[in-house]
Amino acid sequence: MKLHRVRPGLQSVGVSKPFIVIIAGGRGERFWPQSRAHRPKHLLPIVGTEPMLAQTLRRVRPLAPAGNIFVITSVRQEKAVREVCAPFCLPAGNIVAEPVGRDTAPAVGLAAALVGQRDPKGVFAILPADHVIKDEAAYRHDLRAAFAAAAREPVIVTIGIKPHEPATGFGYIRKGKALARVGGSRAWKVAAFYEKPDLKTARRYLASGEYLWNAGMFVWSVPVVNTGFERHAPDLQAGLAPVRAALAKGRRLGPVLQKVYPSLRKISVDYALLEKSTNVIVLPASFDWDDVGEWAAVARHDAKDAQGNVGRGRTLVEQGSNNIVISDGQHLVALVGTDDLIVVHTPDATLVCPKNRAQDIKLLLKRVEAEAGGHRWL
Amino acid sequence: MKLHRVRPGLQSVGVSKPFIVIIAGGRGERFWPQSRAHRPKHLLPIVGTEPMLAQTLRRVRPLAPAGNIFVITSVRQEKAVREVCAPFCLPAGNIVAEPVGRDTAPAVGLAAALVGQRDPKGVFAILPADHVIKDEAAYRHDLRAAFAAAAREPVIVTIGIKPHEPATGFGYIRKGKALARVGGSRAWKVAAFYEKPDLKTARRYLASGEYLWNAGMFVWSVPVVNTGFERHAPDLQAGLAPVRAALAKGRRLGPVLQKVYPSLRKISVDYALLEKSTNVIVLPASFDWDDVGEWAAVARHDAKDAQGNVGRGRTLVEQGSNNIVISDGQHLVALVGTDDLIVVHTPDATLVCPKNRAQDIKLLLKRVEAEAGGHRWL
Repeated sequence: MKLHRVRPGLQSVGVSKPFIVIIAGGRGERFWPQSRAHRPKHLLPIVGTEPMLAQTLRRVRPLAPAGNIFVITSVRQEKAVREVCAPFCLPAGNIVAEPVGRDTAPAVGLAAALVGQRDPKGVFAILPADHVIKDEAAYRHDLRAAFAAAAREPVIVTIGIKPHEPATGFGYIRKGKALARVGGSRAWKVAAFYEKPDLKTARRYLASGEYLWNAGMFVWSVPVVNTGFERHAPDLQAGLAPVRAALAKGRRLGPVLQKVYPSLRKISVDYALLEKSTNVIVLPASFDWDDVGEWAAVARHDAKDAQGNVGRGRTLVEQGSNNIVISDGQHLVALVGTDDLIVVHTPDATLVCPKNRAQDIKLLLKRVEAEAGGHRWL
Repeated sequence: MKLHRVRPGLQSVGVSKPFIVIIAGGRGERFWPQSRAHRPKHLLPIVGTEPMLAQTLRRVRPLAPAGNIFVITSVRQEKAVREVCAPFCLPAGNIVAEPVGRDTAPAVGLAAALVGQRDPKGVFAILPADHVIKDEAAYRHDLRAAFAAAAREPVIVTIGIKPHEPATGFGYIRKGKALARVGGSRAWKVAAFYEKPDLKTARRYLASGEYLWNAGMFVWSVPVVNTGFERHAPDLQAGLAPVRAALAKGRRLGPVLQKVYPSLRKISVDYALLEKSTNVIVLPASFDWDDVGEWAAVARHDAKDAQGNVGRGRTLVEQGSNNIVISDGQHLVALVGTDDLIVVHTPDATLVCPKNRAQDIKLLLKRVEAEAGGHRWL
């Protein structure tokens, strides 16, 4: 892999007006029954008291004027997303709803079109909407460094998370050649991206010290994205041409997205662009990070009783340990003699699942979908 | 133990107008959260589609005119009990509410007073309100035989259940000398009553073939009960004198029960009378019987899926076996990857409990009681 034109001695410089594009999609499966298709994780206060999307907006707000912040969501979630965004005063046109999900590559292409219409050389970050990050100052410091790098050089900047366990649920980034400091942080060229590994491989990655988690945070300029798509995914770049044309003419985006999106290839930006690019660098994050990927993960953030139980709402555990019990309103959820169980009560559905079986909630939801009238619970 | 005056060759004869007293009390703990203090098991369709009390009334109705059937309940449950009894046209005065629970001995004394006021030599049965008995013809056959025996002789007749497992949740009756047939059934004098045994003892009882379960079904005459109380529990007999006086004078029972009951000794009729009496005989039941003492027991009566799961209402089990899942209305209760779990959802409370920990629901309810406002769930 060859890295182009990264100057030695790269330093952080301010980027006057970077753009931020928050990807707020998701199918609402992993946090079922609280999360639903129309109300996935980023619209819920999975950790904390605000929806994860609101926490993300609050975190990025000091980085850019409201007019430079975009949220890409789905039509099913658009109404709820607009409600969450309201206090942050984003222009109405900065919240864009995809009519169908096509994974992240088309969303990045759409983001480049949106930013490019404002500033053809604009630098922007693609950020997930639903992660937990507490050290916001460090987060913004790292993003500012990434913006500076992407403004100076035609590079794709990823923020990599230093792994602390052999996680099998994330993609990994292998560090290549060390680069000069970027905004006070070390940077590396990226040697390669790897898909979610098995446990044995993940242990090897962790032990080597050469790998970082891919957290889906990318910073780049509009020309870098456009050039990358033209080279590695020309079908997507061509497919999105009507979107760029509509933006240039100031037309409403809804109809053109409705027309264009169904024909776009469903593919992640990792596959379509990052793995094929040679101009990728990685900044190891200096902030804490948790994607809180499933119910069991909330135990890392909530207070526990003496037996290790987490309770939200009206809950009781008698003679049981390490359970996660979540209720709503005044409904009492009471456990007796159970260990390591997840119990989540909502007004119309209750989930009971051992912590180590949380990945099978997807199978359950297929069953629910197959039930007569089952869609009401999805 | 000496058995008085049981004639050899005792035969079933019709008792023209026996009385039936159904004891419908209970604290509503074992089937929480469906059962509550004001709505215990006998007011719920734990097995079948009618409340257990309604099933009991339907079962005994052919044995006696409605005017001869009494229900003794508690003031907390009186309203609901009257509603369940309504279709059976019992006289209003035949439903009697105890102001406080004093276990079964005072209730039997009250029953003798109620029956005695109608017929000083009346024969009556004390029957639980919440058991599952499917062979109703055999049940009535056995009760008729017991009525006949109690009408002929000054004996206490118990109906014993032939054990099919070493249950530790029931008292046991040891058969003594075999007596002549009673109504086509064998009868034995009772050698002794035993409290709930440990498992080892229960296994010995089962293996010996000499023991029957004590199902709390007793048939006797008013004079036999009165004489027994006078001899073995004179405090209770004296304590209930104002009740007999009020009945003789046709006064309303409520105020006198309110005055008398709190001072009565709290004791079961087994301790107070049966264990001390020498004139007890036992008829082995010719009918099926299940007291359905806890949630796990409903699995004996409900249809199961291929994985042994029982579901009532809107329920789903994915990759789990032998669970009991009970919901209400349109609320979906969904389990993933769990085995041998009881999950019961009601509008204001949900229970999750391994089948083998059901006895600890009582501990849970003590915790609920101790919570601020916890009484709302009891």
